[in-house]
Amino acid sequence: MIDKNLIEAENAGRQADLAQDYQSLGERLARRGVDIDALTDRARAFGVAVPSWGTGTGGTRFARFPGLGEPRGIMDKMDDCGVIHQLTDATPSVSLHIPWDKTDPALLLEKAEETGLGFDAMNSNTFQDQPDQAYSYKFGSLSHTDAATRQQAVEHNLECIEIGQAIGSKALTVWIGDGSNFPGQTSLSRQFDRYLDSMKQVYAGLPEDWRIFSEHKIYEPAFYSTVVQDWGTSLMIAQELGDKAQCLVDLGHHAPNVNIEMIVARLIRAGKLGGFHFNDSKYGDDDLDSGTIEPFRLFLVFNELVELEDTPGLNLAHMIDQSHNVTDPIESLIVSACEIQRAYVQASLVDRTALEGYRQDNDALMAAATLRAAFRTDVEPILAMARARAGAAIDPIAAYRASGYRAHVAQTRPRVASGGGGIV
Amino acid sequence: MIDKNLIEAENAGRQADLAQDYQSLGERLARRGVDIDALTDRARAFGVAVPSWGTGTGGTRFARFPGLGEPRGIMDKMDDCGVIHQLTDATPSVSLHIPWDKTDPALLLEKAEETGLGFDAMNSNTFQDQPDQAYSYKFGSLSHTDAATRQQAVEHNLECIEIGQAIGSKALTVWIGDGSNFPGQTSLSRQFDRYLDSMKQVYAGLPEDWRIFSEHKIYEPAFYSTVVQDWGTSLMIAQELGDKAQCLVDLGHHAPNVNIEMIVARLIRAGKLGGFHFNDSKYGDDDLDSGTIEPFRLFLVFNELVELEDTPGLNLAHMIDQSHNVTDPIESLIVSACEIQRAYVQASLVDRTALEGYRQDNDALMAAATLRAAFRTDVEPILAMARARAGAAIDPIAAYRASGYRAHVAQTRPRVASGGGGIV
Amino acid sequence: MIDKNLIEAENAGRQADLAQDYQSLGERLARRGVDIDALTDRARAFGVAVPSWGTGTGGTRFARFPGLGEPRGIMDKMDDCGVIHQLTDATPSVSLHIPWDKTDPALLLEKAEETGLGFDAMNSNTFQDQPDQAYSYKFGSLSHTDAATRQQAVEHNLECIEIGQAIGSKALTVWIGDGSNFPGQTSLSRQFDRYLDSMKQVYAGLPEDWRIFSEHKIYEPAFYSTVVQDWGTSLMIAQELGDKAQCLVDLGHHAPNVNIEMIVARLIRAGKLGGFHFNDSKYGDDDLDSGTIEPFRLFLVFNELVELEDTPGLNLAHMIDQSHNVTDPIESLIVSACEIQRAYVQASLVDRTALEGYRQDNDALMAAATLRAAFRTDVEPILAMARARAGAAIDPIAAYRASGYRAHVAQTRPRVASGGGGIV
Amino acid sequence: MIDKNLIEAENAGRQADLAQDYQSLGERLARRGVDIDALTDRARAFGVAVPSWGTGTGGTRFARFPGLGEPRGIMDKMDDCGVIHQLTDATPSVSLHIPWDKTDPALLLEKAEETGLGFDAMNSNTFQDQPDQAYSYKFGSLSHTDAATRQQAVEHNLECIEIGQAIGSKALTVWIGDGSNFPGQTSLSRQFDRYLDSMKQVYAGLPEDWRIFSEHKIYEPAFYSTVVQDWGTSLMIAQELGDKAQCLVDLGHHAPNVNIEMIVARLIRAGKLGGFHFNDSKYGDDDLDSGTIEPFRLFLVFNELVELEDTPGLNLAHMIDQSHNVTDPIESLIVSACEIQRAYVQASLVDRTALEGYRQDNDALMAAATLRAAFRTDVEPILAMARARAGAAIDPIAAYRASGYRAHVAQTRPRVASGGGGIV
Repeated sequence: MIDKNLIEAENAGRQADLAQDYQSLGERLARRGVDIDALTDRARAFGVAVPSWGTGTGGTRFARFPGLGEPRGIMDKMDDCGVIHQLTDATPSVSLHIPWDKTDPALLLEKAEETGLGFDAMNSNTFQDQPDQAYSYKFGSLSHTDAATRQQAVEHNLECIEIGQAIGSKALTVWIGDGSNFPGQTSLSRQFDRYLDSMKQVYAGLPEDWRIFSEHKIYEPAFYSTVVQDWGTSLMIAQELGDKAQCLVDLGHHAPNVNIEMIVARLIRAGKLGGFHFNDSKYGDDDLDSGTIEPFRLFLVFNELVELEDTPGLNLAHMIDQSHNVTDPIESLIVSACEIQRAYVQASLVDRTALEGYRQDNDALMAAATLRAAFRTDVEPILAMARARAGAAIDPIAAYRASGYRAHVAQTRPRVASGGGGIV
Repeated sequence: MIDKNLIEAENAGRQADLAQDYQSLGERLARRGVDIDALTDRARAFGVAVPSWGTGTGGTRFARFPGLGEPRGIMDKMDDCGVIHQLTDATPSVSLHIPWDKTDPALLLEKAEETGLGFDAMNSNTFQDQPDQAYSYKFGSLSHTDAATRQQAVEHNLECIEIGQAIGSKALTVWIGDGSNFPGQTSLSRQFDRYLDSMKQVYAGLPEDWRIFSEHKIYEPAFYSTVVQDWGTSLMIAQELGDKAQCLVDLGHHAPNVNIEMIVARLIRAGKLGGFHFNDSKYGDDDLDSGTIEPFRLFLVFNELVELEDTPGLNLAHMIDQSHNVTDPIESLIVSACEIQRAYVQASLVDRTALEGYRQDNDALMAAATLRAAFRTDVEPILAMARARAGAAIDPIAAYRASGYRAHVAQTRPRVASGGGGIV
Repeated sequence: MIDKNLIEAENAGRQADLAQDYQSLGERLARRGVDIDALTDRARAFGVAVPSWGTGTGGTRFARFPGLGEPRGIMDKMDDCGVIHQLTDATPSVSLHIPWDKTDPALLLEKAEETGLGFDAMNSNTFQDQPDQAYSYKFGSLSHTDAATRQQAVEHNLECIEIGQAIGSKALTVWIGDGSNFPGQTSLSRQFDRYLDSMKQVYAGLPEDWRIFSEHKIYEPAFYSTVVQDWGTSLMIAQELGDKAQCLVDLGHHAPNVNIEMIVARLIRAGKLGGFHFNDSKYGDDDLDSGTIEPFRLFLVFNELVELEDTPGLNLAHMIDQSHNVTDPIESLIVSACEIQRAYVQASLVDRTALEGYRQDNDALMAAATLRAAFRTDVEPILAMARARAGAAIDPIAAYRASGYRAHVAQTRPRVASGGGGIV
Repeated sequence: MIDKNLIEAENAGRQADLAQDYQSLGERLARRGVDIDALTDRARAFGVAVPSWGTGTGGTRFARFPGLGEPRGIMDKMDDCGVIHQLTDATPSVSLHIPWDKTDPALLLEKAEETGLGFDAMNSNTFQDQPDQAYSYKFGSLSHTDAATRQQAVEHNLECIEIGQAIGSKALTVWIGDGSNFPGQTSLSRQFDRYLDSMKQVYAGLPEDWRIFSEHKIYEPAFYSTVVQDWGTSLMIAQELGDKAQCLVDLGHHAPNVNIEMIVARLIRAGKLGGFHFNDSKYGDDDLDSGTIEPFRLFLVFNELVELEDTPGLNLAHMIDQSHNVTDPIESLIVSACEIQRAYVQASLVDRTALEGYRQDNDALMAAATLRAAFRTDVEPILAMARARAGAAIDPIAAYRASGYRAHVAQTRPRVASGGGGIV
């Protein structure tokens, strides 16, 4: 963890400017009828889970270029997550990935207490083979043609639940790579039936207070068809499984040009939106840092969430899911958490009374202008104040760099060699 | 209509070659265990509806360039449809569009008898304003913020049902352009609620033996959001309305790269696939002639339909929906009907026993090769023989051109001026 | 034109807040080493041309829903453009479209003086047929197989130059719809050769101080191939024609996912970037208001332009090209001009010294953060102050609405009926 | 290699059917004025290079699932390539990848003689780090900000040329992953300048009779910008480097919806088309087997190549570039070579005289029908006869499976463990 004194020292030099910017913004917001402190409180109450795997440098099928101080395992990863939360106060929980993070639950709980973190949704992994695995997932897992392979995948998911129960998680996210690479390779319909059968077995093992999240993705690693290819299929799954099953929306898992905020609105209408995997993308499932490619799109997603936040039963799991290939993963996760929080605060700024009036009058121009007015408001002082008030860093990246954390852990964490990705 | 003697004369010169090709193909198919005559019977039993509006030259927002002998109204359009069916024996019915085709039902029935055609699904139109209309659809129809406008749109749909009942139609297809052009312009959620409310009123007016088809489209004419934007939303609509509501898939209404045959499989699984609007496209809703851009995609759609053809309750409405901007519409519709029929016959050729074996063994290569073997079989002799046996044309385009039909109708149908599209 | 007193009165009530916001922003910018007045001067020096055709309500192939007070011709359109410039001080010129705007050049010059506007690039139209035209453009214009049709299109372009010379324009933009709807319909290579031959004739008629802009577009109205489909082809054209030929980039004319700012950088490198058609889009060539769908993308385009603004010989023609289907076109053009100016000012804010340092160090995170810091700065006070100092409106939309201009012109401009687009 | 007797035995059982099918197809083609033997000769003269790396099982960033008998190095890979050529007679050369295939050139030449193969274009690799490498390519190679890193990448390319010279190759293909993951991370313009500078050094080292191929790709592994992102940039590179520089088109490296055959026609017009990397794809750079996803697209590419085959100076390098994740790579390469050959033969079948007539008359329907008539001709008998006459296999997959080659090599090649891809 980072020394609190360092954070305080870093904040000290920024406090005066922040106070002035906060006051000035507060006055401008007051003119629009908005109470800045109420927004700061909303910001403080907002949290997004960090994926344990996101703390390591990611790669592509072509190559992976690790950085210094790569985490050696889940204990290191939780240390890194602890730093992110310490500096941002925006990432109170970690989402684990089994078997990557498999270890003694007691150790996990101990580390959670040490780092001040909780555990969000568990993630199963049936898109890779593990060394000791009886059946290969080369041709599928939960939807495999072979019953024994499906059973193995079901049991793995049940084990994830078991581990999750031991550490206080309340949800399981299921994402599989199952699909096909060639027209004809698989029966699109029967493969889906097999998937549903397997999922019903997993669902049957779900504790009463748990949820299961179905996560769709249009393609990759399967390149012709994917069993859970879009939100329509994900909805069918959630409907068929039952009340504890909901849909998870990853921002990068859609076809080009798709309007994601509409999907958000539809899934809320269906009572089936369970949560998000946040990231940003330009081409495919690029898994880039949230809010760095198309920030207005992220804002529009949160605009739906804020507009519909009073929907009865809405209970969203916010998670980051990114691949950090060219940055320090801790820094990318810090920035991403802040960008997600920014979009939430900007969406909270929308003058909804005015907006509804314009909509009712079909005043498209002013309705759109109302959203843009919120989006272009620089809410950085609100985010910074929320952090300052929580004892986190006014400028988290600066504080992180000042702390020398990465160099420090690099002393004990061994250097990892660059390597090819999946292609060789 | 075209003189039967002309068709016979045209066929006479082609009969010998056809007989030889049919026999040769039959021998090759027999080697694969396929009975060519059974396929020819399947081809003969296959039909696809022609859209009345497709008989006129289409255009874009930039311009429209009519040809000679443009149909003056529904009577001319049905004459043209009659010719298409006469030459192909593959288009036994017409799909009407109200108010474009509105006229005395008795006249429609009389013309239907004269041309040997029936009436497929009715199509309502609330994406344009009619001269005598009380409320404008500029800002929406069934989902408009204004109740009176919604009511007008509901009543128009009920009127379509009424007309359809008078002429023996059994279904209503609802496609609307409602949506928005700007983020914020409309509440994505409440606009959908209003749409559902309106549709429930239309549904309530549906006769017992009718179906209503919900047709989705990703964009155009709305360019930011569309109320029924994808099959997921369409499925929610069909589920909420009831058993008589089903989804209609237009091949050109999807996001780029989307795997359409998966949607077909999913909707059949959900018991909600109602039918198709066939066409082809490369970029957006290009409405090009079926099978001319990506013929393998059309084949893969039919591969699902044939694989799942014994699904209980499956009852599909096959319709063409195209815009013919640079061809004689009659010729494009002839070609399209034949290409759709071709895909159906090719899909019927798939060695499904072998395919299932390969799938079970995860022999991706041979499974894919099995589909391709069917696709690359030149089934033209089967299609031609099906036509010949029905008294239609072995080569429909040649017969049509030989008939001089277009020049003939151009004598009575006045020349139509070129014009701008929607932009000026 | 709008009464100056009204603008002054409108501004009066906003002056105090603006002064305060401007000062506060100035202080914050000063902290970053930025002189706010220098930015305001840059904003004031920035201008973008308005397309004459943009002042009328646009439509789609499905329908067009005109508003009140539609302009009756180029004189009305220039009045509307005058109002836009009066309120924004950001649109000093108009881009004409021939033959839509064809009239006595003396009248155009008179109206230009009256409205305080100049004339930007001329636009030819060979994608529609005119009533008196000898040859149809149904199958192409500058690239038609028929020499006489090509000649007609060449002469039309030469006439556009002639008109342009009479009114002080210095450039011709050539965009054609030529292409094909079906594989095989045209020889992709020979059609391009014919296009180049025609363009060489147009180029030969270009005055010494003129430029010709080649504008590419991936599709629509042609749906399989388009002669000038992308910037690569456009570059080949500009290279083959000569020094006076350059490429024009329309933001909505690209394939999905394409990185437009890279094209901007490449064309500048090739010495061939001539200018822009600004608009925004989500799916295809949606022609929506600039900066309303993906504002960060617009910023990134301007980021390239500012980074490379000292490139020798760079001389860009900035034009808007949009279709206003659901808004008052004057309002949309006002908003769009302001959003384009906003992106320019935000891009001018980038700390380029810091940015270069981060780039040199491969500090991807901080380099990206540097761009985002500029983008999220709310520069509205700068834009508003630029307007105020020029005697334009602090809040142009509010002033426009207060003026009652639309209702006023609706008294003399007759109501236009809604109509179908190109489809019927 | 596979025992010739086995091939003969396999062929023996298929000879009678082939003879009959060949004769029957010959009669049908003769009716269309086509000499089947001339086509068979064209088929026999056609060849496509196999990528050495394609003989190993590929993977994604998520996982890689090797099969049995994975090649241990370039000697094994050439054995596998030899089998492919032996069975298809369509893959006379191998394309090497350095450093993956780096070994004593004398051994390569010896193995080439043994397997009857030649060497096509060399491929350099600066998208991965090698264990002994001084500078990392994490942030770029030929376009890196650091001069020493660029120099290292230049020298690697020069070494590839050196190796290539020793084994009789005549071309170098340069594909790099350089780009950026975030807006701002790199200067789009200066990064390109650096790339050009480096490429000029490589070009300077090119022997007189060599060519260098510039290969573009829209994205991956860089996810925001890629230095050589499209054919326009690739063309600029080839123009700037000189006559020995040409562009290589990989079918999967384009934006969605892009018309690839137009790019082919344009690059031929510019005198800059050097060759292809063949594969197929549905979503991104899926690297699937050629002709298995959109066979008509492959046909349309070859349609351009055949239409323009007499273009002076045209000299194309045909290569396969695929990733075989779920099939036996040898089988996928066999099928792909055959599908590429099939598209070439189908394109050779087009009645070009008729086609030109239809084009001249703007008879879009018949022009398109003319292409489709060629495409739907089942030319399998021609391909099979071409193989039979060369002593290759009538049914290469059946012969390969009958040979037991994979099981045989699996006895000496050790089992490779499944592994994660780039993500962990």
